[in-house]
Order: sequence, then C-alpha cells, then structure tokens
Amino acid sequence: MGDSMCNGTHNKKALLSDTQLFDDQFEELLTELTERDLTDPVLGDALRRLREVLEYNAPGGKRNRGLSVIGSLRELLPPSQLTQDIVQRALIVGWCIELLQAFFLVADDIMDSSVTRRGQPCWYKKERIGLDAINDSFLLEASIYRLLRKHCRDQPYYIHLLELFTETSFQTMLGQALDLMTAPPGHIDLNRFTTERYKAIVKYKTAFYSFYLPVAAAMYMAGINSDEEHNHAKHILLEMGEFFQIQDDYLDCYGDPAVTGKIGTDIQDNKCSWLVVTALEVMTPGQRAELEACYGRHSEESIEKVKALYNTLQMPTLYQTYEEESYQRLQKLINGHAQNLPHSVFLNFAKKIYKRNK
Amino acid sequence: MGDSMCNGTHNKKALLSDTQLFDDQFEELLTELTERDLTDPVLGDALRRLREVLEYNAPGGKRNRGLSVIGSLRELLPPSQLTQDIVQRALIVGWCIELLQAFFLVADDIMDSSVTRRGQPCWYKKERIGLDAINDSFLLEASIYRLLRKHCRDQPYYIHLLELFTETSFQTMLGQALDLMTAPPGHIDLNRFTTERYKAIVKYKTAFYSFYLPVAAAMYMAGINSDEEHNHAKHILLEMGEFFQIQDDYLDCYGDPAVTGKIGTDIQDNKCSWLVVTALEVMTPGQRAELEACYGRHSEESIEKVKALYNTLQMPTLYQTYEEESYQRLQKLINGHAQNLPHSVFLNFAKKIYKRNK
Repeated sequence: MGDSMCNGTHNKKALLSDTQLFDDQFEELLTELTERDLTDPVLGDALRRLREVLEYNAPGGKRNRGLSVIGSLRELLPPSQLTQDIVQRALIVGWCIELLQAFFLVADDIMDSSVTRRGQPCWYKKERIGLDAINDSFLLEASIYRLLRKHCRDQPYYIHLLELFTETSFQTMLGQALDLMTAPPGHIDLNRFTTERYKAIVKYKTAFYSFYLPVAAAMYMAGINSDEEHNHAKHILLEMGEFFQIQDDYLDCYGDPAVTGKIGTDIQDNKCSWLVVTALEVMTPGQRAELEACYGRHSEESIEKVKALYNTLQMPTLYQTYEEESYQRLQKLINGHAQNLPHSVFLNFAKKIYKRNK
Repeated sequence: MGDSMCNGTHNKKALLSDTQLFDDQFEELLTELTERDLTDPVLGDALRRLREVLEYNAPGGKRNRGLSVIGSLRELLPPSQLTQDIVQRALIVGWCIELLQAFFLVADDIMDSSVTRRGQPCWYKKERIGLDAINDSFLLEASIYRLLRKHCRDQPYYIHLLELFTETSFQTMLGQALDLMTAPPGHIDLNRFTTERYKAIVKYKTAFYSFYLPVAAAMYMAGINSDEEHNHAKHILLEMGEFFQIQDDYLDCYGDPAVTGKIGTDIQDNKCSWLVVTALEVMTPGQRAELEACYGRHSEESIEKVKALYNTLQMPTLYQTYEEESYQRLQKLINGHAQNLPHSVFLNFAKKIYKRNK
C-alpha cells in the first residue's frame, strides 16, 4: 500500500501541531522502550539493537495512520475533555499503529525480496542484518504491547485496545497469506487474479489496520465500545480502504511521477493490482494471451505493451466510473450508518483521499 | 533447547490421562481456529494455510511446557475445584504455550539455517514454503490470542494471561537477539563467549517461556496474582531453567545417543554452550589457541580435538560439581521462597530434571 493516506485532523494548524507532538513523542518513547524499563545490565546489547531497529524502521513514513488516532479523537471528544494526558496517550496509541506497520513492512520486505523502502535500503538488506531482521520485526511488534501496558493499563479501554491490536494483526496476517498465495514472487498465473480475491487481499492486508484500526482505537479511547457502532464504522472505513488501495493501484500506472514522487512497478512486479483484475474481466481471449506474455516481465517492451492494453481497454474511464460510484456509496454509508458518530470523523478521511493525485 | 523437560503432574496415571486430554484438545482447537470463527468465504485459502501450519508445527514435540499448565494447576487447586471447564481451559492455555514455542521455532530455524526439527524438515525447508514461513510464524503467534480471547475472556485472569504472554514473548525475543549477536552463524569469535552472556541468553531465550510461563499461567488461573508470589516462583523457576539448559548442553557432548536419542552438534555449530564458556574460564592461553582453531569446524578431527580438550579440563567433574551445587541452591530457594505455594509445584519439576540422562 502506498503511504499517502491523510489523517483526520480538522484544520491545517491542528495538523501541524499534532505532527510536531507526534514526532516529539517518538523520542520519548525510544528512551522508554530501551532504557527506563529494563535495568538488567546483561540486556544492554539487546536493547541497543532494539533502539537501532526502532530508529531505522518506525519513523520515516508519512505517519498518517498514527496521526489518525489523535485526529479522530479530536472529532469524538469536546476540546475541554482533551487533557494533555489524553492527548499523549492518543499519540502513543498512534505510534503503536506505526509500530504494527513497521513490524509488517520489515517482514514483508524479506518475503517479497524488496530492495528499498521509504527511500532507504530495506532493513534486512543492510550489512550484517540479513534474516536476523525476522527477530527484529518481532521486537517491533512486542513494543506495541509494552507501550500499551505502560501508558494505558489503568484506562477502562486497555483490554479493548489489546484485543483490537491482536485481532487486527491476525487479519493483516491472513491478508498477507492470501497475497503470498495469489501472487507468489516469480510465479505468474493470471487465473488467480480475480476481483473477489483482490478485494479480500485489500480488506485483510491493508484496510483493517490502515483505516479501521486508528478510528476504532480512538472510539475505544472516547468510551465508544458498542459492537453496533464499531461495525458501522468498520463498514464505512473498509469501503474507504478499498477505494484508497484501488486509487493507489491506478496511480501506480497512471499517476504523474513528478506528483506522486514514485515510479510505479506493479506491472513488472506481477502485482495483483486493481488494473489487472479489472482489465481481465473485460478483455478478449486474444488480449488475455497478450497479457499472459507480458505481465510480470521486466523488459521495457513488455511493460509498454501492458500499458497500451490498459489504454485500449479504457482503464482511466473505468477508474473514473469506479471512483464516482465509490464516492456515492460512501456518502450513503456515512449518512445511513454513522449514527451517533460525528460524520466529520469519516468525511475528513474521505475528503483527503478522494480525487487525490498523489 | 532440548525438548526433554518433564511436566509437573504428580503421578503416572494422571500424566497419561492429561497427555491424552491434551492431544485430544488439539484436534478441537484446530477446528476452532480454522473453521468455526471465521465465516468470510474469501478467507478459505488463508484458513487452509493456517491449518497446515498448525498441524505441521504445533504438535510433534514432547509438549512438556504445555502439559505443565494443567500439571501445575493440579498442585495449586484441590481436586474438587478442578471442574471440567477449568481443566479444559488449562489444556488450552497449555496449547498457547506450545503455539508460542512453535512460533519461535519456525522463525529460529530460518534465522539459524536449520535443516530438520523434531525429526522432519523445518517448515521453511518444505517445497513451496521458503520465506513465506515468516508470515506462517506470525499466524502461530496470533492463534494464541484468538484462543485466549475465545476461552478465557470472561475469566478474572484474562488480562493477566494477555500480559504474561506478551511480556514472555518480548523476553524470549531479547534472548534470541542476544544469542544471534553472540554466536552469529558463520562467525567464530570466542571472545563473545562469557559465562555472564551465556546465563543471560539462557534466562531470556529459554527459561522465561519454558519454566516460568507455564507455572505463572497456572498461578493466575488459580487466582494467585501477587507480584511477590510471582517473583518468588520466577526466581526458583529461572534457576531451574538455567540448570536444565546447562544439563542439556552437557548431554549434547557427554550424553549417550542411545539414551538421549540425538547426536550432539553444538561443537561444530559454534554454539555458546555451557561447556565452551566454562572451559574458556579454566584453560591456558595455549589451550585457547587450540580451541580457536577447532571450535565451530565440521571436520571429525576438529570435533575430536575439542572433546579431548574438554576431557583434559575435566568437564564431567566440573559439571557434577555444578549440578550438585545447583540442586542445593534450588532446595534452599524452594524452602525459603515458595511461601504459600505448595512446594510440590517446584519439586515435581526438579525431580524430573535433576540427574536425568536424556
């Protein structure tokens, strides 16, 4: 998933301020996780390693998921209730989401044989790291539960956050399992690329942790616990997550690299992208044979042929139609399902992600 | 760590019966984790994968850690309080410990480039698995929290078990980090092999999850929550865990393969074993130079030279002395620290592991 999701904070000034608070919180949290708690001197080397792992892998993203916790909480609670302590806890829970993402990214990069991440070498690609990065990914995950325990143990929502993080982790792992068996690196088989499978991967691998998790965490922190309200929010946020990923897939091919800041590689990487699953649904057997010969190949010629095929099939038009329909569907969901939740929680998300071009 | 730890059940008949109950519980739990809970049909392939991963990696060990939960609980509660429900929950929590171990073993085998485990190929070595095994290890870990949630959510000790499992996991990961940096596969550097480092690795990588975790889980299930009682139990059980590992290291070289059922490879594998760290403490600079030239090498000649050096240094005598001292220390700890806990919880463990020859 691209990392261009925007957070739900409601104005530019608050956003800047939350971003600054969020980044400052990381320094505090580094010290906490690697110095204060554990005084057994024999652990010195292991804690120095943990610090390196945290510093290299946790910051450096756009931190939109993490910032969404405080952003959403600002919509759910009146300013008078947002004490400094509550804001700090929301920042820390936000970092827990960034740590969850770092845990998955470190491991996914190994499984995908990726080379770079966020403009630097993948952690496992660094000198003297290699597969020890697997244990490092575990340390990132374990840090979530140490932070929650330290900062939220006395809160009534502690148990809800523990369950939310463990359940969301499991859903993401199921999504990664589906993704690995659908597009195993090195094996090209377009028969596996169906819209149904595509949507399942997006929902489980990305949408739960990127969209539902931050808002759900804020809801629990605001005392909103009912299954009904969570299910409604989930419904809306998973729809948004799906749209977000489809847009990301579209921009991978059709975005302007000068605007998106990255050059797409989904075609040569044999990705189960929205473009390929949608194209497969509308193409002729002849076109399919051509796609079979070109998809997942690294030659410039193959890539251009796939792009030409996408153009012939009018993928930009199909995308625009999808975007419009999805937007309408979402408005309906928000109006019908948001119930007691302020619509702004969802509308802020929606505003940022629809019609973006990067 | 060798897998020869014995459980704390108090007589042969109960042991057989708990073992049978324990194995039967696994079948039940397989169905639960892969069928009953998740009805989203798009998850079919992912859940089939989870089932395969569970079946291949969770059973097949000696299940001593898992059986210790019910074994310890039988010492902590009078039979009249051990209802069928409580016994079942103890069996399930026992399986959670086996799942935690499976999670670590699947990942450790990748990091150590191991080839076999429990008499079969390591999971990642199987055809078409490879590094996808990393995500499979995550699924094993996630299964712990799904089981605890399903079976213990309404119990007063639920939160204690969640914290116990997350904390013990973190300790084990710190131990693995220390181990990886002390004996990186392929780099031989005896300067890193100190007794202090050895003890830290054993404590964090093995003793917490193998010895303290099962008893601590049973204590929480029996309503024993005080930090003081847990610290005392921890003190005793970590001492036992250290002894157990030292004995395992000793038997790797001096055990009779006909009795232990395995042929030791610690010398050629460059392991930070009790034998090498203790030998390093008593040897001359000349002997050290000889060891430097032979340790971690696979030739029969090198291995025999290391063994000859161990004999010259009278390692069996040093071991016997250590064993006797450790046993005395433990008796003292149990008498002084066990307090309100029945000594049998610890003595059953101790009886099984001291003076074993396999």
